[in-house]
Order: sequence, then C-alpha cells, then structure tokens
Amino acid sequence: MADNERKVTPISDLGEFGLIEKLTNKIKIKNQSTLKGVGDDAAVLDFNSQKIVVTTDLLTEGVHFNLMYVPLKHLGYKSIVVNVSDVVAMNATPKQVTVSIAISSKFSVEAIEELYDGIHLACEKYGVDLIGGDTTSSLNGLTISVTAIGIANEADLAYRSGAQKNDLVCVTGDLGGAYMGLQLLERENEVYKVSPTIQPKLDGYDYILGRQLKPEARIDMLKVFSDLKIKPSSMIDISDGLSSEIKHICKQSGVGAKIYEEKIPMDQETKRMAEELNMNPIVAALNGGEDYELLFTIPIADHDKIRNHPDITIIGHICDAQEGTLLVATGGSEIELTAQGWNPLQK
Amino acid sequence: MADNERKVTPISDLGEFGLIEKLTNKIKIKNQSTLKGVGDDAAVLDFNSQKIVVTTDLLTEGVHFNLMYVPLKHLGYKSIVVNVSDVVAMNATPKQVTVSIAISSKFSVEAIEELYDGIHLACEKYGVDLIGGDTTSSLNGLTISVTAIGIANEADLAYRSGAQKNDLVCVTGDLGGAYMGLQLLERENEVYKVSPTIQPKLDGYDYILGRQLKPEARIDMLKVFSDLKIKPSSMIDISDGLSSEIKHICKQSGVGAKIYEEKIPMDQETKRMAEELNMNPIVAALNGGEDYELLFTIPIADHDKIRNHPDITIIGHICDAQEGTLLVATGGSEIELTAQGWNPLQK
Repeated sequence: MADNERKVTPISDLGEFGLIEKLTNKIKIKNQSTLKGVGDDAAVLDFNSQKIVVTTDLLTEGVHFNLMYVPLKHLGYKSIVVNVSDVVAMNATPKQVTVSIAISSKFSVEAIEELYDGIHLACEKYGVDLIGGDTTSSLNGLTISVTAIGIANEADLAYRSGAQKNDLVCVTGDLGGAYMGLQLLERENEVYKVSPTIQPKLDGYDYILGRQLKPEARIDMLKVFSDLKIKPSSMIDISDGLSSEIKHICKQSGVGAKIYEEKIPMDQETKRMAEELNMNPIVAALNGGEDYELLFTIPIADHDKIRNHPDITIIGHICDAQEGTLLVATGGSEIELTAQGWNPLQK
Repeated sequence: MADNERKVTPISDLGEFGLIEKLTNKIKIKNQSTLKGVGDDAAVLDFNSQKIVVTTDLLTEGVHFNLMYVPLKHLGYKSIVVNVSDVVAMNATPKQVTVSIAISSKFSVEAIEELYDGIHLACEKYGVDLIGGDTTSSLNGLTISVTAIGIANEADLAYRSGAQKNDLVCVTGDLGGAYMGLQLLERENEVYKVSPTIQPKLDGYDYILGRQLKPEARIDMLKVFSDLKIKPSSMIDISDGLSSEIKHICKQSGVGAKIYEEKIPMDQETKRMAEELNMNPIVAALNGGEDYELLFTIPIADHDKIRNHPDITIIGHICDAQEGTLLVATGGSEIELTAQGWNPLQK
C-alpha cells in the first residue's frame, strides 16, 4: 500500500465540469432503451409499451457506511446493487441508473474516481446504463443518491400487496450474513482505534465480509422465475431484515404469516460469528438487514416447481391477518414479529 | 409567530415507517401514466410509446440552502421546481417525481412536514405525481435528492446539441434576480448574527426575494412553443448562470455565440440591489444562476413568431465555434465568457 505515492488531486483543480467529464467519459450505453444518457438537462428513454419501474435510495456517510472500513469502490458498487435489488423485487429488469453525489472538500478526485469505478463495475455486471446525475458539494462527508429504472410486462410485476392465505413464504440464499459481517468490521475498527498497529482479525470470515462489503442483487432470480413459470404473488427485497419485510408484505396484502425459525437459512460463518459475539444468529436474520435476498410468496400449487431448488427456501406460510405475523420458535412457541426501521436518535 | 406553542415531535417518536406514512398519506395520483406510486420497492409507470425523460438533483444544507433564512416549505417547493425545470428544458412535460431526504436528529416531524408541504404544493402546481423516495438519517444537516420523469414526442425533444450557425439566442423572463435576492438575504443574515434584535430590511425587494426563495419553472413555455409552432433547436435551463449555460450549448452543438450585454433582460429591482451593493448587475445575470429561466435557440426563420412576445428576449446569435462564446459589452468590446460551476473549496 504505497499510499504516499498515489496521486491526490484536489477536486478544485478540475472544477465541477471537469470532474463530471472525468467520471462519465468511460460510460458506454448498453441498452437500446437508452436514447440519450449523460450530458443534457435530462436523459431520454424509450420503452415502447412496457411498464416502467422507478426506485431510489439515498446513502449517507456515518449512517449507511463508515469510510474507516468500507473502501470507496465497494461503496460505489453497493450503491448500485441496492437499487437494482429494488427493481428485481418488482420482478422487473433494471435498465438505467442515475447517480448523484455530494462531496466535501476532504475527498480527492482519485477518491471519487474509485467510487465511480465501483459504480461502473456494478453497472457492467447488472447490464444497466448510467444515464445521468448530479455532482455537487457538501459541508460534511459523502452522500450518494441513486435512482434505478427498469421494465417489465404488466402481467409479470410482483407487488408487495398480492400475498394470499395459504401461499408459501420463500427466501433466496441465506440471511444474517451482511449484519454479522458488519459486526466483525465494527469490532476490528474499535480495536484499530485503540491500537492502530494491531492487524485486524478478518481471516476465516470471507463470506460474511463479502456479504457486507460487496452484496449482490438477485437478478438471477428473474430467469429462475421465468424458467420455472412462477409469478410470485408478492415480493420484496430484504434490505431492513426479514421481520420488517414480512410485515410489509402482510400489511399491504392484508394477511398474516407464520415464519418457522428452524427454516430460516443461515450460513455456517454467520452462525459462528454470532457465537463468537454471544449473539443469537436469528436476530441477525430478523433485524440485521442488508442481505438483499428476495422474500416472496407463491401459491401452494406451485410448491413442486420450487421444491429442492438450491437457491430457494420455504420458511413459512401466509395466514389470516388476525393470526398476526408470527415467528414460530424452534421449541414451538409463537412470537409476534416487530418491524425495525432506522431511528435517527439511536444511531 | 407563536413558535414556542408549536408542537415539536422528535422523529424517533414515529420511526421510519411512521414518518413515511405521515409524509405520503396525502398524495393523490394525478397522472394516468402513474400505475403505482409510493409503497412498494419501486413505482410503476406506463408511457405507451412516448419518450421518457429523467433528471435528478441533489441539494445539501449549507451549500444549496441555508436554513437560517430559507423556510423549509420554500425549500421543499424549490427542490421540485429545479427538477421540473430540467424536464421542461428538454421541451418535455413533467409527470412524476421521487423525493429522498436524509435528516439529522435536529429536525422534528413538524419541520419535515413543512418541507413536504412545499413539495406537495409544487407537485400540485406543476401537475406531477410524487411516486416514491427514500427517508433516511444523516449525521449532519439535511440533504434532498429529487428525480423527475417526463414525457415528450421524440420530434419535440430539445437537446443542448442542436444549435446551428445564425440561430437566434433567446431567454425567457429576466436574469440575475435570484442571485441578488440571495445577496440581500445573506447581508441581512450577517446583520442578524451580530445584532439579533435588529429587524431585517427586506422591504421593497419582494421580486428578487421571491426569485430566490420561490423560483418557478417555465412550464408555461411548453404551451407557448406549441402554440407558436416553435421547436427550439437547442435549450437548457439557467441554473448556473447565463455564461455557463450558453457555453454548454456551444460546446455540445459545436458552435460559438455572441451575447449582447445590453439585450440581457434584468428587472429594476435586480439592478437597484446591485447598485446598493456596488456590484455590476451583469455579473448576477452571467454567473449568479438559480433563475430557472430557459435559454434556447431558434432558427432565424422563426424570428417573426417570437418577435414582441412578452416572455421572450433575443439576446444574441449563434456563430462559428472558432469565433468563441463572447459577450459583446455595451461599448462594443468583446469578452470571452467563462463557465463557473461550483467549487467545493471556495464555498
């Protein structure tokens, strides 16, 4: 790490327009629906008669990320992934993104280029075009705002509101890993703050670190659903934790749900880290968030289609609203799930 | 101003989901193209075969606004206007917006509601639907990110890149007012900081204060262009100042331009304030920005259509690129215009 040899250019050397040019000159348009990208008052899109899906997310330094341990390239990548994930959660295909950043003078041109390297990498991976944005200054820290646009046939769209009684509740992948990865990073960061010479102990936790630092959106599931001829009756991505997401589906669908603790898929590393920190791993799955897996419901008649699919786990079923949204613990007791959003005074 | 009697609810009392519900429960969908608004992973739009325009802006506290003298309701209103203005500058009709905010714990629920009152008011005025967003926390101050979506027939779209030699350069309304309004507010804020009991002297400057605090987008010009059967060969909205905007058009069109100082429309109040502050008012028009008027070019053959139109002033013409982008001063001397974006180290 020859940090002292790396070039560091103050952003004031380039000015706004110079910076924008530097950040956007490597953009290549990939989608036919992108008529006009960066460089005018607005981008121009053309989707013929398909339905268009729009989602947006705002990430702020110190709340959503800590630059002490999150590399800017990873942060850029993640900022695209979280929006792609929201489009995918509509059962729609992401096509374009806009990216706006507000930066304070502590950031160099090279730092912002690293951020954009991650953004470009994610755009490449998910086949989306970066079509515009805003680049501006802030008094404190870094803020990233991304808007993603996707398309779908109307019949394919999966809302949060379509779950029906007796539907199966399913998740992709495994849960809680991103949260346990964050706990590990925060622990090592605390050690670093006290003793900067001690090397962080991150060995053996590659999976959960990756889940936190380089999450991926389940865009692969669009093809799985299509191949299996499944249309989820409801779907949401898991950004805030399973508890919160299943409650969204239940509220908007006017139903209840039973989720079985023993069915919730978790990786061995997630469990091992939880044990090391004297935590119940189920808390990471329920309230941790940032896994960007998909939570969805399907009619029970589709059970055979997904049975034994390696990426899908059935974790419960939909019931009447008055039964509540319950976690059935391994011992059989039932606990009402509670949603936890952010709370600005607790952070 | 019975400020001490007003209810102040900490945002933590509501939590994220409570706050979102409070902010979005008064939304009424106005546009047929809005299939699904707030409440899912993404909004869903349907524009049939028209072209779709997307633009986004990020406003940060202390850089784009100072809450010492900008009321939150005005700020909310302006955050929509600046994006509507970008859509209009494409000669397109705005239809939807997403609004994301990051807020620190210093803001109460009532404060954020005031911000949204302004947002809703602007959505009402410009006929756009608020279809989604993100509500999150920040360590410092307020950040607002807005994305606007509009539609147009392909043939109507006005890019920055279409200006041709001999085209007339036109602006709507008058320039420099918003900047002089800002100077006035900043002067009075400095006085206030030293002597809080002295009443601010804002009398007689209603126009320029309004230009700064409650700017409007020139959505009316869409109908004017349509009625007059004019398609601007190029167009941009004036957010950064005339200098910067004409240079954008020239660069992207591969042309030069001559702008005549004496033709630049300015209000009497703008000139009076400049005089009071010993400033040249032309600086406010050229580099001040935030007027949100439209700068556009039309073929000289369309001259008769706009002559004597009360909202349009011809300020110059397009020439060859090698002639440069020049201001022809009242005395006849020619000065190369320079673009000024923001510079984070100068703010």
